[in-house]
Amino acid sequence: MKAITLREFGGPEMMQYSEVEMPVPGDGQILIKVINSSVNRPDVIQRQGNYPPPPGDSEILGLEVAGVVESMGANTSRFQTGDRVVALVGGGGYAQYALALQDHCMSIPQSVSFEQAACICETYITAYLNLFILGELQGKKSVLIHGGGGGVATAAIQLCKTLSPETEVIATASSNKLDRVRSQGADHVIDYREQNFADEIRQITAKRGVDIILDHIGAKYLEPNMKSLALAGTLMLIGVMGGIKAELNLATMMVKRQRIIGSVLRSRPIHEKAAIIDQFESSVMPLFASAKIEPLIDARFPLKDAAQAHELMERGGHFGKIILSNQD
Amino acid sequence: MKAITLREFGGPEMMQYSEVEMPVPGDGQILIKVINSSVNRPDVIQRQGNYPPPPGDSEILGLEVAGVVESMGANTSRFQTGDRVVALVGGGGYAQYALALQDHCMSIPQSVSFEQAACICETYITAYLNLFILGELQGKKSVLIHGGGGGVATAAIQLCKTLSPETEVIATASSNKLDRVRSQGADHVIDYREQNFADEIRQITAKRGVDIILDHIGAKYLEPNMKSLALAGTLMLIGVMGGIKAELNLATMMVKRQRIIGSVLRSRPIHEKAAIIDQFESSVMPLFASAKIEPLIDARFPLKDAAQAHELMERGGHFGKIILSNQD
Repeated sequence: MKAITLREFGGPEMMQYSEVEMPVPGDGQILIKVINSSVNRPDVIQRQGNYPPPPGDSEILGLEVAGVVESMGANTSRFQTGDRVVALVGGGGYAQYALALQDHCMSIPQSVSFEQAACICETYITAYLNLFILGELQGKKSVLIHGGGGGVATAAIQLCKTLSPETEVIATASSNKLDRVRSQGADHVIDYREQNFADEIRQITAKRGVDIILDHIGAKYLEPNMKSLALAGTLMLIGVMGGIKAELNLATMMVKRQRIIGSVLRSRPIHEKAAIIDQFESSVMPLFASAKIEPLIDARFPLKDAAQAHELMERGGHFGKIILSNQD
Repeated sequence: MKAITLREFGGPEMMQYSEVEMPVPGDGQILIKVINSSVNRPDVIQRQGNYPPPPGDSEILGLEVAGVVESMGANTSRFQTGDRVVALVGGGGYAQYALALQDHCMSIPQSVSFEQAACICETYITAYLNLFILGELQGKKSVLIHGGGGGVATAAIQLCKTLSPETEVIATASSNKLDRVRSQGADHVIDYREQNFADEIRQITAKRGVDIILDHIGAKYLEPNMKSLALAGTLMLIGVMGGIKAELNLATMMVKRQRIIGSVLRSRPIHEKAAIIDQFESSVMPLFASAKIEPLIDARFPLKDAAQAHELMERGGHFGKIILSNQD
């Protein structure tokens, strides 16, 4: 089969469309003929050599695939050959065939295309896990979502407005994306380059602060994030793109009863991922089936041109998912 | 009535036994004739001028009282005059009479003395809230409790061994208290002055780390605490005796899915405190009634000698509660 492999870690030019061995499904696994996969920010970091796959997962890039069941390993009964499925995978998405644990797969509703399905697993499950399962978001709360134009952030805004319409959603974004972020459902947008977001949050919330922050920036935002949190608020930390180490004021955190929760999806134990996907399938998949939520797609590339897809992601001008296709 | 008042903030010599006005129970409040109250570390910090009571609470020191119901305000029906009660109060414990919200009171079981009852509210509720309600401790987990000789720590060790016997309890203490901490039920003790606790935790847990840390030290311990936490472990931060600001490694925290939860009891909204006390009364009070847990009492002083009680607490040589009494 064909897949994208890396000559070595580095820039997009290291990515090559190669012939590799077809994977064989093991215990509890199914082999998926990939129709579409998608590009996520962690793929870029993995390509650069800074985000190895969990032990046992494919070294090939790609965290989510949509396609049809090609064959099944031992102890698999949930799907049949030919079923349309979408899967969260620890790696291996940039290929014509990919292995997935059956418990990490979901059926694709009839009304959802493969392209749309390929947008669901990484970003929507990450947003759902962090805001709704771990963050316990519901009702009249307020949430701050950083980088509102990004994949997880867009998914987070859509999920908030659909699953918890009373929630006040504030998003930061760069000036050229503010309007589009607002059109996704954000009640307030903050231009993070031109405005001090902690000051804006203070004003928007009448000094109260927000209940939950979804942050992928890390160190650079730690202090203004903690300032922006309400009493008993939670900072969900899902990335460190703005640095690793920062000073924390523990007295304020204690008196205000605030929380910081570190969270990743990819390296969680497989049974935990299965439980998360199970909850997601019953709570969120029906929203795709009924088109209450529609994934935003920015661009499509044939799998062989995955390097161009990475160049687009690294330029950062996209809004919505970048899709790879095996059907060209 | 008599009460301990402060000439001004400062050392124990500022405490005086004075005549003050008797408080009058308001809506939802009861007036308790205090038989015993007890001394807690926050009382010392409040005496020094660094821990003001929540708005509306008495300026008089003292966070817990045991006694009998003297009279009742409007909208109170849970207790009757003469009932033996113990109460968590925002202030006012160092007095002959104290006000409490009826929802912050519990009946004292027949087999429990007023002295014992006066030991229950502040330390055991704090330990229960942070380990069992917020920390979700149960089953085969491991816990690190700092300052094992302190009031909250002793309560925490006892609660772990009684409510969750499978839990592995590790406590730090100074060398002269190690044996007594072990006798309270700690499976392992670490001499925090002579040993590097993070190294010891690594060895005791075979590199896994502990699931929960109960910490009142703060900044000085942040780095070794985070090193000592297992995957998905939680640092419960309930004090900052060792400093306020410290550097946090956000990348490690994210990848290891760790949590920091800031927590205080005193300034929580009164309805939250009522809910915590309600849960405590059904889950933990029966353990006192059946003597499965017995509060440790180190020393007793007449209320008028509260300054001596503070001197003892500040010297730090005590092990167990320091009780104040109105019956001498």
